[in-house]
Amino acid sequence: MNNYTFIQGGVTAPQGFTANGVCAGVKAATSAAIAKAAKANESAVIPNGKRDLALIACDKPCTAAAIFTKNLVKSDTIYVTRKHLANGVAQAVVVNSGNANACNPDGYEKAEAMARLAADALGIDENDVIVASTGVIGQPLPLAPIESGVNALRDILSKEGGTNAAEAIMTTDTVKKEWALQTVIGDKTVTIGGIAKGSGMIHINMGTTLSFVTTDAAISADMLRAALVEAADVSYNMVSVDGDTSTNDTLAILASGYAGNEAITEKNGDYKIFTKALTAAFKAVAKKLAADGEGATKLLICKVSGAKNEQAAKTVAKSVICSSLVKAAMFGADANCGRVLCAIGYSGAEVDDVKQIDVAYQSASGEILVCQDGCGLAFDEAKAEQILLEKEITILITMGDGEATAEAYGCDLTYDYVKINGDYRT
Amino acid sequence: MNNYTFIQGGVTAPQGFTANGVCAGVKAATSAAIAKAAKANESAVIPNGKRDLALIACDKPCTAAAIFTKNLVKSDTIYVTRKHLANGVAQAVVVNSGNANACNPDGYEKAEAMARLAADALGIDENDVIVASTGVIGQPLPLAPIESGVNALRDILSKEGGTNAAEAIMTTDTVKKEWALQTVIGDKTVTIGGIAKGSGMIHINMGTTLSFVTTDAAISADMLRAALVEAADVSYNMVSVDGDTSTNDTLAILASGYAGNEAITEKNGDYKIFTKALTAAFKAVAKKLAADGEGATKLLICKVSGAKNEQAAKTVAKSVICSSLVKAAMFGADANCGRVLCAIGYSGAEVDDVKQIDVAYQSASGEILVCQDGCGLAFDEAKAEQILLEKEITILITMGDGEATAEAYGCDLTYDYVKINGDYRT
Repeated sequence: MNNYTFIQGGVTAPQGFTANGVCAGVKAATSAAIAKAAKANESAVIPNGKRDLALIACDKPCTAAAIFTKNLVKSDTIYVTRKHLANGVAQAVVVNSGNANACNPDGYEKAEAMARLAADALGIDENDVIVASTGVIGQPLPLAPIESGVNALRDILSKEGGTNAAEAIMTTDTVKKEWALQTVIGDKTVTIGGIAKGSGMIHINMGTTLSFVTTDAAISADMLRAALVEAADVSYNMVSVDGDTSTNDTLAILASGYAGNEAITEKNGDYKIFTKALTAAFKAVAKKLAADGEGATKLLICKVSGAKNEQAAKTVAKSVICSSLVKAAMFGADANCGRVLCAIGYSGAEVDDVKQIDVAYQSASGEILVCQDGCGLAFDEAKAEQILLEKEITILITMGDGEATAEAYGCDLTYDYVKINGDYRT
Repeated sequence: MNNYTFIQGGVTAPQGFTANGVCAGVKAATSAAIAKAAKANESAVIPNGKRDLALIACDKPCTAAAIFTKNLVKSDTIYVTRKHLANGVAQAVVVNSGNANACNPDGYEKAEAMARLAADALGIDENDVIVASTGVIGQPLPLAPIESGVNALRDILSKEGGTNAAEAIMTTDTVKKEWALQTVIGDKTVTIGGIAKGSGMIHINMGTTLSFVTTDAAISADMLRAALVEAADVSYNMVSVDGDTSTNDTLAILASGYAGNEAITEKNGDYKIFTKALTAAFKAVAKKLAADGEGATKLLICKVSGAKNEQAAKTVAKSVICSSLVKAAMFGADANCGRVLCAIGYSGAEVDDVKQIDVAYQSASGEILVCQDGCGLAFDEAKAEQILLEKEITILITMGDGEATAEAYGCDLTYDYVKINGDYRT
């Protein structure tokens, strides 16, 4: 039973939270610095008016948790946020886009300064601020626009501003990503909301880039963290756009407790309800991130069943979704089953017998079996093409080895992916 | 000291070997079968005249060895070739392009039949035939064109025909790849020659697609295999075009012994000379495979030094060369150092301190340091762009952790990669 309902809204849907996003000028200042280094005309860089600074705040300290990129090369924002979350408490999130504040000599000091500026603007403890950045790596972070930006944001924090916050964290995303849902814990309505950004450098294992989640559930920091890890494991950790994991990936959650449910402090039934709702939301976000992958025209979902164990199922699903050849074939609506079998074969997953594998393609236009018992079938190519011309395609793989299942999310590989990434910085 | 010299020629350069390649019609028959399944007009598929069947033969049985794809999903040609090489002896190689004979219910029987047809044409034992296929996966292999093809080839085997053999194994390759070199063992001149094909589905760990090597050295099958593994480890195993390992990858070598050197039967000085020459040739092939990667406009070489150990050096070099974001940036001549650091960070390599890493770009136009001690520098963007507009770019990484080095080979990610792979089969 799905005892949750998606509703309109985002990070300000839960009780206690306000937010907003502005064009502070971080993107413009970073572009100008690059242009200056290129000896181009710096004054030619005109602020493009895009929002690039977001502030999310609660009217009281929250329990909080976060998980981060596994990349060894990390933005200093991650070290600062981790320090601030050591006590499991946070009250605000400050995020900029346009500059990743990664691989800079002064990155740590600037990440601390960014948190302090937000804290000063809000009149809260700087240790209660989560700080994050996304954008170009290796360019010094300009603090002046952040200082004026957070002061401007303080005055316009609102329920309606949540959607501007979603917009302000976008980089190459083409659509902003926000969501909210409600579930019932005890007899209390609990709301969870969030914003997220893609859309390149997204890969399995917290290749999430940035996501901020709020809830009015009453829940301990430990349980919040456990729920976060559990939900991310089958959602964010199963998305791949381009196989690159970023330096800045951060998925953070704050819980205000305003819903008034009996506080969740152990893995009981209430914990399960909360985690189930969170997981459903994260899976929906995972699909949004994949569908809006850089240059993507199609969402790919790989569903594996009959695997020997969960690890094998996940490994196969991720390998198929990550294959450049599968991704390019899906772009071209080419029902090439050899590439899927190939990606299963090199995945490293435990497979008893490749001669038991079936592969089918499924979409709104129907379903077609293209491989049975490890061998290609002489299928109806016209029907297959019709199926693959849809915007959302599921690759169904049956392993014949056991009962385990898994699902991974990706997108097609297109001309535009190359275009976007051929010259990203300027 | 490099005691070897590259010479003109290919697989027929060593004494004892002849070869040729013809248009047998395997590609046309496979395309027609796909068109029929698609209910298109089968007669509209006109043979394109491209060579698609190669035969390489020695006038006597040779010592022989081969290494194969690590993909669990294998073409049946690999099982047949492995069986035929169990005794370390082979006398001929038959290879078709246009159809991979992989993932077919009758693949094994057809691979055996293909070897038998070649053996009958040559009047040799079918167990002495190496058989290989490349092309579309999951389409039944048409035997009729192979039968007429090998009979036609028998009559035109020649020294000059080697170059046609190189052409006949091409799929999406834009240039044929053949090479030959000579070295001196004892007082005897030893010649080694080879042909190879790319150009997609190429990845580290015998993502070689197909390569056939001949030599007139006298060397035991065991030592031949040892030399093959050693040379491939730093060449074929360090190339990545798209991260996909194929079902058919085969690297085989035949040694006729005609050079008259004292037979190499142990890892002595002669073995080292032979392996050094083989390694030099394979590294040259690796660069050719990478430079002719599907859609590639640039050869990328990643040179890692100062790594903690060889494993770390190799892992870092391969991770950088495999990164879609690095590859796309190189296509766009964008000196984005963040993507290189990012790829080092998620490589999984043992790294003591990312704050010690330097990154530079080098080409025929010069060299520029873009990252020092893990931090981006304010480099001259115009100079960087000039360097990155060259056809061969080296990414230099200094880890600061130790003394180990490694080199990996790849190419840029381009619009044409997507185009080629969006609709490959027809």
